[in-house]
Amino acid sequence: MRGAADGTPGPAASTGRAAPVGHAAMRSANLSLLLRHLHARGGRSRATLAQETGLSKASVTSLIGDLAERGLVQEGRVERRGTVGRPGTEVRIDPGHVAGIGLELNVDHLAVTLQDLGGQVRFRSSVPTPVVDGQDGRSHPVAPVLDLVAQQLRETLEAAAAQGLWVAGATISPPGPVDYAGAGVRFASNLGWSGVPLGEELAKRLGPDMPPLSIENDAKLSALAEAPRLARQGITDLVYLTGEIGVGAGIIADGRLVRGWSGFSGEVGHIGLDPAGVACRCGRRGCWETLVGFDTVLAVLDPDDPARSGHLPLQERLRRLRGLLDAGDERLVQRFRTLPGDLARGAGVLVDVLNPQAIVLGGFFGAFADVLVQPVQEALDARLLTPDGRVEVSASALGLDAAAIGGADMALERVLADPLLAPVLPTGASR
Amino acid sequence: MRGAADGTPGPAASTGRAAPVGHAAMRSANLSLLLRHLHARGGRSRATLAQETGLSKASVTSLIGDLAERGLVQEGRVERRGTVGRPGTEVRIDPGHVAGIGLELNVDHLAVTLQDLGGQVRFRSSVPTPVVDGQDGRSHPVAPVLDLVAQQLRETLEAAAAQGLWVAGATISPPGPVDYAGAGVRFASNLGWSGVPLGEELAKRLGPDMPPLSIENDAKLSALAEAPRLARQGITDLVYLTGEIGVGAGIIADGRLVRGWSGFSGEVGHIGLDPAGVACRCGRRGCWETLVGFDTVLAVLDPDDPARSGHLPLQERLRRLRGLLDAGDERLVQRFRTLPGDLARGAGVLVDVLNPQAIVLGGFFGAFADVLVQPVQEALDARLLTPDGRVEVSASALGLDAAAIGGADMALERVLADPLLAPVLPTGASR
Repeated sequence: MRGAADGTPGPAASTGRAAPVGHAAMRSANLSLLLRHLHARGGRSRATLAQETGLSKASVTSLIGDLAERGLVQEGRVERRGTVGRPGTEVRIDPGHVAGIGLELNVDHLAVTLQDLGGQVRFRSSVPTPVVDGQDGRSHPVAPVLDLVAQQLRETLEAAAAQGLWVAGATISPPGPVDYAGAGVRFASNLGWSGVPLGEELAKRLGPDMPPLSIENDAKLSALAEAPRLARQGITDLVYLTGEIGVGAGIIADGRLVRGWSGFSGEVGHIGLDPAGVACRCGRRGCWETLVGFDTVLAVLDPDDPARSGHLPLQERLRRLRGLLDAGDERLVQRFRTLPGDLARGAGVLVDVLNPQAIVLGGFFGAFADVLVQPVQEALDARLLTPDGRVEVSASALGLDAAAIGGADMALERVLADPLLAPVLPTGASR
Repeated sequence: MRGAADGTPGPAASTGRAAPVGHAAMRSANLSLLLRHLHARGGRSRATLAQETGLSKASVTSLIGDLAERGLVQEGRVERRGTVGRPGTEVRIDPGHVAGIGLELNVDHLAVTLQDLGGQVRFRSSVPTPVVDGQDGRSHPVAPVLDLVAQQLRETLEAAAAQGLWVAGATISPPGPVDYAGAGVRFASNLGWSGVPLGEELAKRLGPDMPPLSIENDAKLSALAEAPRLARQGITDLVYLTGEIGVGAGIIADGRLVRGWSGFSGEVGHIGLDPAGVACRCGRRGCWETLVGFDTVLAVLDPDDPARSGHLPLQERLRRLRGLLDAGDERLVQRFRTLPGDLARGAGVLVDVLNPQAIVLGGFFGAFADVLVQPVQEALDARLLTPDGRVEVSASALGLDAAAIGGADMALERVLADPLLAPVLPTGASR
């Protein structure tokens, strides 16, 4: 008896995408298999690796040699408790040679993270995004913003070089949908940009130093950044919710990011929940954003409250809000009393459509996890039609850094998929 | 420059699922590669196969020999137009030896389809589902329904044997969410069943004749059945909407079925679109089903209209509705005037969440495609925030047979994934 849930792919998978397996491809696939295994599960002996992957011990030894030559893995003593005999050696990820870069370009700040293959952050910076106050309000001038991104990217590359790290690639997340084909920003409504060829412009500025660049939406990258933590709990279906000015979702189904055909999945801020609801900036009514967006929380404060100032970094505005809430500000206390129900209304739609095992609250939702997670959980539990569909609500573990970390992860994925991309270390280099 | 849409898997894929590639696995993977290629793209010469798959000509010849030995492929003359020289031979799928079975257990009928590897239906039957009228209304007694399913399955196996077909497996779709782990029906609300161990009960009845069985929800199977047709147009992100008593969705993202963590994805009938809406049988208000369910259409007719009789097969009720609509029944004409807008409201949510390239209308929506597709398309186009997110609305090409055909496809997928499952033909068997 086979349940359909055993991973049998459906016929829709039969679109001829599989690559043929020749001997060179086989070696590359096995290098990737071993590297991913060590990356996901941590250091272990060659014998354990052989047992767990099904590869022969001789193959494991030879493949590990290749990976070590490229500074991707290293050997170390392992402490064995309760066994007799000489201590074994284990193979583990070498964090000292390969890194990825993630950049989050946001309305108020540009965050950069350099992360090594071992998951350690090696360099981090956050600078305010250039803003011009004009007659029509604030705007984000394209050239100065791009200059700043290029400068931050260059600084990060220098920090990598100074630490002896080879950079596998960089991922940048603009605030809004991404034009994958043109490597640009199609509709970054919150920056007011449209059709900016982000990749091309950065390449122009960085010249030969430009690392391989990917562009991905912030909610999607945040979902990717949180995914490994949840995967260790056996959770491979999740929705990450990011709440700032807009509301966006990063969807992971069966361990894979759902991008949508043109990269616009997760644009959940505008799902219509009430035809008689408040008018939304998109022109429709009762969009989820009009119920749970950051602006709807700020709106209860005085117009000149510092938390409402777009000139302050998000972190500071959140600290100000937190202070007011903790001090028992009646308007905020009341707003946070109704917010969980409104969050659960939209989240309930996502549960019905996607049946995720986890919903992770990010952005400002995550910053107020202590007052949101439990009531949202209770509201979702109350609307369950069957206990098998239960979803677990939690707060983002990475906070406002999630997108940049996800970007670095995505850049490192290039090496996990194809370890031969990493250059062979010069002879005598430390391993 | 690499866009993220080039198929680079995200770090979430690094959960150590990949299998190691040894020589036996390599041969099996290449057999599967060739068989899938022929299945998806049609017959072609060995030289073309080698070119398209990247395998050597010698490998292709040897692998094709293995596939032919199992009756999976055959050779045939190919007509060459406009070329000189002796006609070449092409390799193509052999439709004569291997088949899959799909069963759709519905509220009013049980449909069975036997389909060969070439996609031809070899046997089909549809019988009414046993119903008992009791004090509390109609019910579907478990044992008689299971007896009927077993009998239909046995008849289909006999039809396969009589045609010399080896059956790779069977897939059954109950009306409602599926309990994959227990191979049962957890919540088939429309049958009134709960916790029926469908697989176990059928195995008991069929004994050693029982084929490998999968269980899958009808909307998901229908999506799988429609997917190859759309894949040929380059569409790998789609939502199939089935409308009968309830409304369900089958979601395919990047060529893969999205099941959700417990198989309950696509339960879109109860997404809440209006807090002030009509009370739903689920206990909530304004569910999508209360706007577009089959019952909401039937409700405009006289209470004793034959189309409202649950004792008539769905096909006949649809024919009756069609007759009334074509005759200009004012109530129906009016209902079908508002239906597209209500369909687009829920479909719009799915577009925002999933960004599919195609929405396929099945069930009774598909039966009224001529009056629904265009206005639904227009309503969805009107709410687009960016032209890149456009979705194309079309009608199911398979109609009410979609789920059974998808079930047979899913059963055949076992052989596409692992061609060595098919038995070697006895020597002298026709190829």
